[in-house]
Amino acid sequence: MQTVRVELGERSYDIVIDTGILSGIGERIKGFNFSKVAVISNPTVFNIYGDVVINSIKNAGFETLNVIIPDGEEYKNFNQTYQILTELLKNKLDRKSCLIALGGGVIGDITGFVASIYMRGIDFIQVPTTLLSQVDSSVGGKTGVNHELGKNMIGTFYQPRLVWIDIDTLKTLPKREILCGIAEIIKYGVIWDEELFEFLMHHRESILNLDPLPLTHIIRRSCEIKAEVVSKDEREAGLRAILNYGHTIGHAIETETGYSRFLHGEAIAIGMNREAWLSEIMGFLNRKDALKIKAVIDSYGLPSELPEDLNADKLISHMKLDKKVEAGEMKFILPEKIGKVKIQKGIDIENVRKALN
Amino acid sequence: MQTVRVELGERSYDIVIDTGILSGIGERIKGFNFSKVAVISNPTVFNIYGDVVINSIKNAGFETLNVIIPDGEEYKNFNQTYQILTELLKNKLDRKSCLIALGGGVIGDITGFVASIYMRGIDFIQVPTTLLSQVDSSVGGKTGVNHELGKNMIGTFYQPRLVWIDIDTLKTLPKREILCGIAEIIKYGVIWDEELFEFLMHHRESILNLDPLPLTHIIRRSCEIKAEVVSKDEREAGLRAILNYGHTIGHAIETETGYSRFLHGEAIAIGMNREAWLSEIMGFLNRKDALKIKAVIDSYGLPSELPEDLNADKLISHMKLDKKVEAGEMKFILPEKIGKVKIQKGIDIENVRKALN
Repeated sequence: MQTVRVELGERSYDIVIDTGILSGIGERIKGFNFSKVAVISNPTVFNIYGDVVINSIKNAGFETLNVIIPDGEEYKNFNQTYQILTELLKNKLDRKSCLIALGGGVIGDITGFVASIYMRGIDFIQVPTTLLSQVDSSVGGKTGVNHELGKNMIGTFYQPRLVWIDIDTLKTLPKREILCGIAEIIKYGVIWDEELFEFLMHHRESILNLDPLPLTHIIRRSCEIKAEVVSKDEREAGLRAILNYGHTIGHAIETETGYSRFLHGEAIAIGMNREAWLSEIMGFLNRKDALKIKAVIDSYGLPSELPEDLNADKLISHMKLDKKVEAGEMKFILPEKIGKVKIQKGIDIENVRKALN
Repeated sequence: MQTVRVELGERSYDIVIDTGILSGIGERIKGFNFSKVAVISNPTVFNIYGDVVINSIKNAGFETLNVIIPDGEEYKNFNQTYQILTELLKNKLDRKSCLIALGGGVIGDITGFVASIYMRGIDFIQVPTTLLSQVDSSVGGKTGVNHELGKNMIGTFYQPRLVWIDIDTLKTLPKREILCGIAEIIKYGVIWDEELFEFLMHHRESILNLDPLPLTHIIRRSCEIKAEVVSKDEREAGLRAILNYGHTIGHAIETETGYSRFLHGEAIAIGMNREAWLSEIMGFLNRKDALKIKAVIDSYGLPSELPEDLNADKLISHMKLDKKVEAGEMKFILPEKIGKVKIQKGIDIENVRKALN
């Protein structure tokens, strides 16, 4: 069992990573004094893992209930938030109650958001069941839902009490979703850790076979990097922005294609490649490293290039509404070499257009 | 100019109290690096004070806009929250933008809530224009909106950047609203400060005349007490609960009467009197002090007794859904003498019923 600590003073918490630990969640939280525990999930995940989790919590002596919401990013919205809140009120959850997010990023983001605004904040636990959420969204306390005018425009910074990662849950995950997680892990390599990047290059096959050892290694390393960055800058005042490498273009692609054509990790993979080229165009990154980034993305079978039918100007107009835009200034995270990025403000739109074409 | 500091580490802020300072708000925030400033208000308040505030901010060099929402507690809800968020997105407010809540408690609560969830949190400033919000809701960082199943069930703890109190705004406030503020000030006297309680008893006339000196005194003293309590317990883990004296019964009355028959302060006034008698019934408070509490409430012309048509059992069932209920246990704030209260858990429903009848 591997434990990564996220150091945030009184809001510190553990990320626990291992195989076959899903049924141990109840035992782990036995000491927490929860009045009720509500598992928030979607039908797909709950059908496979719901019983194991619910029984584990019940056996630990907690009163439990579950709230099942429809599957998909399009339900990560304000209306669905209200419906969950209503269920919690109907079931008389109080300030000492706890939510468990059992699922991927959508479930984690909306559950964290609900936990942060229900009676001004109750505890919640992340039990991420996708690789993407295990290495990214479940760690760091960003919660949120989408608005028709933009992704994750509504949300809070709100830390979970615990992150509980059972990598066995990846066995039931479609390969396309595994690759989305790989995209974020590539990101950690590019922004922070050349060794992790090289590891990904050299262990492609065993990783895609879901061999526990390399898989645990890259998940733990990703969580460690994210924990370190978040500990230094919880509310994204500075450093934390580097986690958005690939995301400025990635989010614009998702917005333009209505969140349906590309999965998040796929859009980010394209974003990482195109932002590496933006860095190359601006003279911050050498061509060899830019090609290496593209090569690793391609080697996993992730998309690295924009489809021809996507219009650069439309993407740019979406970027201008991005949360990361401050006082009208466009900001990008640009690699300087594998393992190191810089936060670059005031980027010329012409260069962005070039990088997109 | 009186300044009360709310000490909360990096979330500390000033409460500034004086006459005629509304037009000085722009000058005061000049140093804050806001990209845009949105004033959130209702038609009644904005018609009187909107121009002064907007011009003051504009003259300080900020780009401004205003979002006007309908007047009344019934609009403090999730739907209205969404509409404000949409306006902010349409006007491209970013993470460096600031909201100013210009109005009473409804405006302050919903503006604070919106600020706390817009792009995961932006700055906001309280400019309370009612006595109630000046001494209570604008200080301490409780934000929230109502749910059909209960008052303030949705919200966050989120501190303002500044509280700016111009007591001249009270001149345009209906007397009934002034009295609502007095109810909360009586509360501070009962829970914390016998001297303030005595001051209220002996300066009734000049206070109701809105004489600046006694008025500034009781507002400053109320803010000081609230600041002290909040500094010690920001998230209501313990001590802060004492601010809810009168509110357990008060909220139940508001819920039962659909938030329309009584103003908040009136319901709280009844609650304070009935909770004082609950304390007397349970042997914590002597009869003389209970009568004194009722006498001061009555002397200001506030209601102290439940109307006969309100059913005690219905009120009790509302109390059971109150946020302050933990693990099914009813908790009351009970005076032990004027200036001192205790937090009492596990209260027998029979005693509550007696106190209501």
